[in-house]
Amino acid sequence: MIPRYSRPEMTSIWEAENKFRIWFEIEAHACDAQASLGVIPKEAAAVIWEKGQIPYTPERIARIDEIEAEVKHDVIAFLTELAENVGEESRFVHQGMTSSDVLDTCLSVQMSQAADILLSDMDRLLAALEKRAKETKHMACIGRSHGIHAEPVTMGLKFARFYAEMDRNKKRLQQARDEIATCAISGAVGTFANVDPSVEEHVAKKMDLTPEPISTQVIPRDRHANYFAVLGIIASSVENIATEIRHLQRTEVREAQEYFAPGQKGSSAMPHKRNPILTENLTGLARIVRSAVTPALENVALWHERDISHSSVERMIGPDATVTLDFALNRLAGTIEKLVVYPQNMLDHMNNFGGIHDAQRVLLYLTQNDISREDAYRIVQRNAMRVWKSYGIDPDNPDSPAELDAVEKEAQEHDNRFFFFMSKDEGLMEILSVEKLSKLLDEDSISYHTKNVDRIFERIFGK
Amino acid sequence: MIPRYSRPEMTSIWEAENKFRIWFEIEAHACDAQASLGVIPKEAAAVIWEKGQIPYTPERIARIDEIEAEVKHDVIAFLTELAENVGEESRFVHQGMTSSDVLDTCLSVQMSQAADILLSDMDRLLAALEKRAKETKHMACIGRSHGIHAEPVTMGLKFARFYAEMDRNKKRLQQARDEIATCAISGAVGTFANVDPSVEEHVAKKMDLTPEPISTQVIPRDRHANYFAVLGIIASSVENIATEIRHLQRTEVREAQEYFAPGQKGSSAMPHKRNPILTENLTGLARIVRSAVTPALENVALWHERDISHSSVERMIGPDATVTLDFALNRLAGTIEKLVVYPQNMLDHMNNFGGIHDAQRVLLYLTQNDISREDAYRIVQRNAMRVWKSYGIDPDNPDSPAELDAVEKEAQEHDNRFFFFMSKDEGLMEILSVEKLSKLLDEDSISYHTKNVDRIFERIFGK
Amino acid sequence: MIPRYSRPEMTSIWEAENKFRIWFEIEAHACDAQASLGVIPKEAAAVIWEKGQIPYTPERIARIDEIEAEVKHDVIAFLTELAENVGEESRFVHQGMTSSDVLDTCLSVQMSQAADILLSDMDRLLAALEKRAKETKHMACIGRSHGIHAEPVTMGLKFARFYAEMDRNKKRLQQARDEIATCAISGAVGTFANVDPSVEEHVAKKMDLTPEPISTQVIPRDRHANYFAVLGIIASSVENIATEIRHLQRTEVREAQEYFAPGQKGSSAMPHKRNPILTENLTGLARIVRSAVTPALENVALWHERDISHSSVERMIGPDATVTLDFALNRLAGTIEKLVVYPQNMLDHMNNFGGIHDAQRVLLYLTQNDISREDAYRIVQRNAMRVWKSYGIDPDNPDSPAELDAVEKEAQEHDNRFFFFMSKDEGLMEILSVEKLSKLLDEDSISYHTKNVDRIFERIFGK
Amino acid sequence: MIPRYSRPEMTSIWEAENKFRIWFEIEAHACDAQASLGVIPKEAAAVIWEKGQIPYTPERIARIDEIEAEVKHDVIAFLTELAENVGEESRFVHQGMTSSDVLDTCLSVQMSQAADILLSDMDRLLAALEKRAKETKHMACIGRSHGIHAEPVTMGLKFARFYAEMDRNKKRLQQARDEIATCAISGAVGTFANVDPSVEEHVAKKMDLTPEPISTQVIPRDRHANYFAVLGIIASSVENIATEIRHLQRTEVREAQEYFAPGQKGSSAMPHKRNPILTENLTGLARIVRSAVTPALENVALWHERDISHSSVERMIGPDATVTLDFALNRLAGTIEKLVVYPQNMLDHMNNFGGIHDAQRVLLYLTQNDISREDAYRIVQRNAMRVWKSYGIDPDNPDSPAELDAVEKEAQEHDNRFFFFMSKDEGLMEILSVEKLSKLLDEDSISYHTKNVDRIFERIFGK
Repeated sequence: MIPRYSRPEMTSIWEAENKFRIWFEIEAHACDAQASLGVIPKEAAAVIWEKGQIPYTPERIARIDEIEAEVKHDVIAFLTELAENVGEESRFVHQGMTSSDVLDTCLSVQMSQAADILLSDMDRLLAALEKRAKETKHMACIGRSHGIHAEPVTMGLKFARFYAEMDRNKKRLQQARDEIATCAISGAVGTFANVDPSVEEHVAKKMDLTPEPISTQVIPRDRHANYFAVLGIIASSVENIATEIRHLQRTEVREAQEYFAPGQKGSSAMPHKRNPILTENLTGLARIVRSAVTPALENVALWHERDISHSSVERMIGPDATVTLDFALNRLAGTIEKLVVYPQNMLDHMNNFGGIHDAQRVLLYLTQNDISREDAYRIVQRNAMRVWKSYGIDPDNPDSPAELDAVEKEAQEHDNRFFFFMSKDEGLMEILSVEKLSKLLDEDSISYHTKNVDRIFERIFGK
Repeated sequence: MIPRYSRPEMTSIWEAENKFRIWFEIEAHACDAQASLGVIPKEAAAVIWEKGQIPYTPERIARIDEIEAEVKHDVIAFLTELAENVGEESRFVHQGMTSSDVLDTCLSVQMSQAADILLSDMDRLLAALEKRAKETKHMACIGRSHGIHAEPVTMGLKFARFYAEMDRNKKRLQQARDEIATCAISGAVGTFANVDPSVEEHVAKKMDLTPEPISTQVIPRDRHANYFAVLGIIASSVENIATEIRHLQRTEVREAQEYFAPGQKGSSAMPHKRNPILTENLTGLARIVRSAVTPALENVALWHERDISHSSVERMIGPDATVTLDFALNRLAGTIEKLVVYPQNMLDHMNNFGGIHDAQRVLLYLTQNDISREDAYRIVQRNAMRVWKSYGIDPDNPDSPAELDAVEKEAQEHDNRFFFFMSKDEGLMEILSVEKLSKLLDEDSISYHTKNVDRIFERIFGK
Repeated sequence: MIPRYSRPEMTSIWEAENKFRIWFEIEAHACDAQASLGVIPKEAAAVIWEKGQIPYTPERIARIDEIEAEVKHDVIAFLTELAENVGEESRFVHQGMTSSDVLDTCLSVQMSQAADILLSDMDRLLAALEKRAKETKHMACIGRSHGIHAEPVTMGLKFARFYAEMDRNKKRLQQARDEIATCAISGAVGTFANVDPSVEEHVAKKMDLTPEPISTQVIPRDRHANYFAVLGIIASSVENIATEIRHLQRTEVREAQEYFAPGQKGSSAMPHKRNPILTENLTGLARIVRSAVTPALENVALWHERDISHSSVERMIGPDATVTLDFALNRLAGTIEKLVVYPQNMLDHMNNFGGIHDAQRVLLYLTQNDISREDAYRIVQRNAMRVWKSYGIDPDNPDSPAELDAVEKEAQEHDNRFFFFMSKDEGLMEILSVEKLSKLLDEDSISYHTKNVDRIFERIFGK
Repeated sequence: MIPRYSRPEMTSIWEAENKFRIWFEIEAHACDAQASLGVIPKEAAAVIWEKGQIPYTPERIARIDEIEAEVKHDVIAFLTELAENVGEESRFVHQGMTSSDVLDTCLSVQMSQAADILLSDMDRLLAALEKRAKETKHMACIGRSHGIHAEPVTMGLKFARFYAEMDRNKKRLQQARDEIATCAISGAVGTFANVDPSVEEHVAKKMDLTPEPISTQVIPRDRHANYFAVLGIIASSVENIATEIRHLQRTEVREAQEYFAPGQKGSSAMPHKRNPILTENLTGLARIVRSAVTPALENVALWHERDISHSSVERMIGPDATVTLDFALNRLAGTIEKLVVYPQNMLDHMNNFGGIHDAQRVLLYLTQNDISREDAYRIVQRNAMRVWKSYGIDPDNPDSPAELDAVEKEAQEHDNRFFFFMSKDEGLMEILSVEKLSKLLDEDSISYHTKNVDRIFERIFGK
């Protein structure tokens, strides 16, 4: 977590002011419950709220830091400073509780707050993806498997699948948030020996948490591990989308481009360049968020009822992973919102290879018309190879330039070279007339390939 | 995945026989759907089932391998061998589909099958934990934070918290299983251009899967990442339980011990030793299962509509992580079922330190009786330190042996040294009579600390 | 480690035959040393060699397995079977030793053997990279930063940098191999109480190892962690090279292509496709090798003098990481050896953008001729932008098609549009004559950019 | 990296002041080299040093930030501010260079500086370990494998092995530092087209770096990966030492204890506790440092000549991993320096189990005296088991309390119960007289086990 990749909404969750405010609320609500039980005087609880519920100003925080430097214990420092404001009733604060009751319940609150921001980030991203998906629903472009042209898809399908993936992530995060939102006020080693379970129940209710069914001074760390694992999955999806944009922005592809503000300087050496630096940056940020997963898993196995090895880890990955992911989701949403798309380039690419993307369509047609799969495959492949050759690519003779025969040279005059070669394929023509072939490939190729886009969109966005 | 740490139930999921059987079912169900649509003859679909649904014997598998060695493509090899059995109707198989439709849907089935076994493993483990928890519900032992004696808990609470943790894991796995159980029959780059969506819907229904709302030739890998992340969390919980047992079996602790079969040899050099090798082994296995998480996350970002980098990863972590975790869960369940516990040692340890575990109880009593937190803390600490000193430990003078004064020597005669020292504490006796103190500490300490165990158990196991 | 991604040279290191042979050698050499010390009879040592040094046939291995199934201890099973061959002198075997002395020293030998194979794999890869680097030393292609065309480089520079990187990896592996090649024969908890240090020294010398200066029954695991970390780095370099090839093989780039054997089938649905499946596969294999690093690091912290949690981890990552990396290095070497390159495509791409890659050269010229950096930057950028515009790309008006003015239309007739626009730039022409500009850009652009290639090659390959 | 776990020596390396100072030096040295080549006027280089080499005060840094906010490019902002100080000669700065030349060379300097601090941290730690090793060289304690008492070692051996491990780590870091200390001034895509290689050589020499043999605008990231991998190994060794101390400080063990300053408060609820919080904290910090390894490995595979995905990762893990490890090494050194050891407890534990740790010694003696290994094993085991039983532990009848026979009861009167039982073992007494047994076990057990400690120390520390 560094300022360059942080938004104040998220960093403020992890700042002292928010932390101490939550600590106070936990303690004060616990006092109310203890007062109801008659463990402490009702008046004391009232005084604690009255005198204690004042803002944690920089001055108060400095005072707590000063005390901590002396006593080397953060919760004791907090309580001591609180006592300076509350007066003698302060001795009723924290009764029967341990530091972990405060620290762990506070962490639950902070992680829930962080999740709420991330969920709202995802809403922004989902809205952007949906909008762009619908705008580009029928904007045809070549689909690529293995980086190689395959068959037509639409730009809208790309956005739609990212939408579906991010929507799954949102559900995962919602569940992880619910899981982490537990409250433990169970005292030393979690036995409730010195504090009644009803105190926990009261604090949980007031803080919008559920009581941790069984704690051992600490809330079990599988909950936190699950939370960070979900952040790691979301980050991987961020990388997935970023990778797509980086590919689309390549010089040779230029089907999409990150928005570049007028006046923005690019490379200091090469002023003409438009680099996909936002999505490259997101690729790196994804690695950072993901790096929190393993330490969070290593935190699960604590010794006996608890050790404190998890604490230093969480002090770092708590802010780091949530702040970085929050920044990344917003940067990604902004990138999607403003992404520039180049439909003409998409069409150019698609039409660049002589109709070869209809190879499977022909293959299918042949097998449905009494040709064996093997024969059909051979027919399609030999004609496809000639298309490549007509573009100067001869994979079977890589070391020498493709030598073209007369038909191959002639093909260079045609747009749909694949059709042209098949019409010259004697073996094929014995079993299929040019007319039939012509009819087959006459139907607009793009319409053929994208005919089910509406149906897919319905699955994702409903009718 | 190595035989030493494998169970045949799980390994068979990943073997060729199961894989090809699933492939066949996907293809044959797809044929039924295509026949309903009139794309292929109904008779062809019938023939395919009739002639194709025969066991994948070692001979058939060898034949497929032989073909694959030649064509270097596993699905083509499979289809070619199938054609040898089915005859000419075989050309209606796989129409409009891609290899990934078969491979990815099969992987969904295998991962679901693996999850089902793991869920049943967890049931066995949960049953063992519940049984042992209830048996040892009130078996008192010292709770330890930071490896240091804290306050009493019960052995049952340990089992109960592992139960609660593993029960959460079961829910996570159930969700991950539901998420991964999707079916994609969407053809090249996932557009359904050459295969109607109703084929996918039919196959999904027959294979107990749900249709993947949007695929791109492959099922999106965030689903798989989520699955392996959950396996990593479960493994971390296995390590958590294993770590507890390893600690309890330490020579100096001996509160529990892995069952050691009569006749079993231990160390080749030290025959007297009873080592917690099962749980140490589980600690290592947990690291292995966890190591699948990062590559699974790295698999999410594929290039454009798909690349095949995920495939080699999944060919290894698919079997490795599920087989190893299956083995680990069963080993752990067996260990829990037979775990030997030593209640007398537990009591001995608890009573070893002169009642010092009641320190907080006294602290609380004092603050509830008009003593400030700071004063109470000082009183308790100074007496606690004398207890340590009477055991020869003087943390303030670590370099020389503790020099005991007369009272400290006298204390060595007493069981509850903490009480003894407090009764000699003049400052304390000014504000608290020996009678009150005596009354306070008279209540059976263990009962005091474990009074809420029933309530905690109700939260976990219900009434 | 699965057969699909394994080579027998490497897998045989991890097979029972090799393991038991090493175990026997360790034991027999130790007997020699013990005999020299007079601890056991010299004749006994001789008999042990004589009767024991026979091949570990499948029958012998089956017998050991049988015994292990009973005694549940691998070294005891091994010794028992050995005794069956050696007879009563067998009781002099293993004197004062622990199982770990055998197991850990054997692992050192196996990891050294594996490293030797990997080193020789790297030699093959380095030779291929050097050969291809020298072949393509001056084969010009556009350099790309951020996936965007930058300035010319040569194909040879790509191979050369991979050579340099892999050569560093080789040195790292050589060091890791030296580090892991240690021998521990120090007995229980490593004190040499029951075995003289000279035994260790003798065995080390005979097995080409160095004595472990201080062991604790086990060889310290930082050595192994270092070894697996180096494998992880090498794997990342494999991914680096694979990623370059995948990019170069993209349909829109086609500057290089994995060799595709005549008759090899590609996609089952799209027979025309030539996919970079070897390098995609290598990308996945890299993830697998890398996944061994974290568990190896987690193995370092053992409890007290040793626990056995590392063992199950190493039983898996030992073979998995070395076998997979061995396979990957060979697959990569083969890919490099046969990689098809398309120099004409490289030139076409370079010349595709109107000479814009000389932007920095002009920028530099201007700043060296009394123009401020800011002014120079502005001049170059405004002309570069017009080049883009003439190709239909107007980043400042992404939503509408680029509207071209007369000059921009005219530019489309020119090859070097960048020069053309500058010659029409009035502001620039005030400070720079067309003649000077012409002279500046007259020098062959590629020669300009690649003039230091020889010097770089000298740094890497020497003169 | 958070203030709580940071030392200013290390954080200052990563602060703006240090960074900009290094940037300036790189630029100014490059100007000198360019002036020597006649590319820029010598006077200009002199002016740049004269006017530019002034401290980067907070005001200057604020000005740079202000410019960066506008131009969104850090190096351009830096150069612009520099120009404000240097005047018109500033246009000769950065000629032919790219931002990466500055950024990557600066990162090399910072990582070298960080390594130097870490190396000095390790010297402090090594000195502490050596001192404590020599102090406790012959301080006997029980060695433990699997957490179970094995045979005697000495406290000094523990420190000595940590010394040897950390010394290996120091060598690894020294190598990683040498590897990362390279300089790249090679211009766009690394071809030296616009900057002569002699400039790089000059800057490298002046900055105590070596020229990067081949760069591609960026320094290859395998170097950085190697560096972070070494930090991960060191962190794992820190965890290793920390884990040992945590174990030794357990209540039941108390053979060592972290120093606890007088007045330091422990648990807020349990004032008597002395928790090993420093070493628990180190365990967590190790996880954090280790988490940098995977993203550093993922950074190796950049696209083509470079992409910028590595940058955000390094902006975080650079400071995080070095600052956290620096803090951890110092905390660990301080912990070792002040660690309190309890030799009496060590002796007590060793003598607690009736001489059972001599089991192997007897086993060895028997096999060296014509008893087969199997018989010897049985004899030793049956007597060892009776020792356990006499302590109330009957592993073969775990569910019921051990029922002691008369001999077992009698044994409870003896210190060396193992000897006692053997002397009553009729089978054994047939082959071994009590006198021989007595003589065998008469030799001081500790001396027997630790007789080679000097020799081990010589291996580590020399004579």
